Amino acid sequence: MDTPCPIARGISAFGDTWSLLILRDALGGATRFDSFRKNLGIAPTVLTKRLAMLTEEGLLERVRYQDNPPRDEYRLTPAGRDLRPILMLIAQWGRTHRPGGDLVRYLDAASGIELEPVAIDRVTGDPIGTRPIRVIIPEAEG
Amino acid sequence: MDTPCPIARGISAFGDTWSLLILRDALGGATRFDSFRKNLGIAPTVLTKRLAMLTEEGLLERVRYQDNPPRDEYRLTPAGRDLRPILMLIAQWGRTHRPGGDLVRYLDAASGIELEPVAIDRVTGDPIGTRPIRVIIPEAEG
Repeated sequence: MDTPCPIARGISAFGDTWSLLILRDALGGATRFDSFRKNLGIAPTVLTKRLAMLTEEGLLERVRYQDNPPRDEYRLTPAGRDLRPILMLIAQWGRTHRPGGDLVRYLDAASGIELEPVAIDRVTGDPIGTRPIRVIIPEAEG
Repeated sequence: MDTPCPIARGISAFGDTWSLLILRDALGGATRFDSFRKNLGIAPTVLTKRLAMLTEEGLLERVRYQDNPPRDEYRLTPAGRDLRPILMLIAQWGRTHRPGGDLVRYLDAASGIELEPVAIDRVTGDPIGTRPIRVIIPEAEG
């Protein structure tokens, strides 16, 4: 991935529909092929390809959990777990712009209060998008 | 979109590779077909379909900017602009997990300091993922 755009690098690693849904389920605790397959209603051949891709991208790790017969499961790596904030922000977008019906809710387990995910700039403390941003594009080499 | 999962609702609206890249360019200021096409190297037929889909999903709005010959441009709606925090978090993920070479940088325009996007829970103020989350799944109807 040679692009200087860090957004494109991320999208290349996990930014397609099935990958995002598989990662959502992995963050929800799924590890096994059959769990992903049943929950997503995804064709086994497609699931096999996506799990291989996500493993190659270093978002999932394939781990043998049983030897006879051999069975593997897929565990999130630290890079995969780092997608939780992104998916929680997508959830917040869905709740805001695609409301209707009973939705899955996410509570802070300790307080029982519903999460209100928001992206801020750690430096200023302000929500992203409330202050002008300047984009610096590196000059092409050579 | 009947799923009770707000993440799936978001992914259904914009969670595929081309849509995310088109929205990235729209947030960067692109509005015209030829700008998207040149910047992304995307086939015109594919771009036409994606722009129609994003317009139908209410993320872009098609606006006539010239009458003779007729020319339209695509402007972000408020729902589309609400994707900026998600894309900035994806950028942060890319910077962390796909480093290497000169990357595009995002500065706070007023201070000139590089953004450090982080998703927090507005209630507790803590970064998402640092406290246990409880997921409430609505019961199926009927």
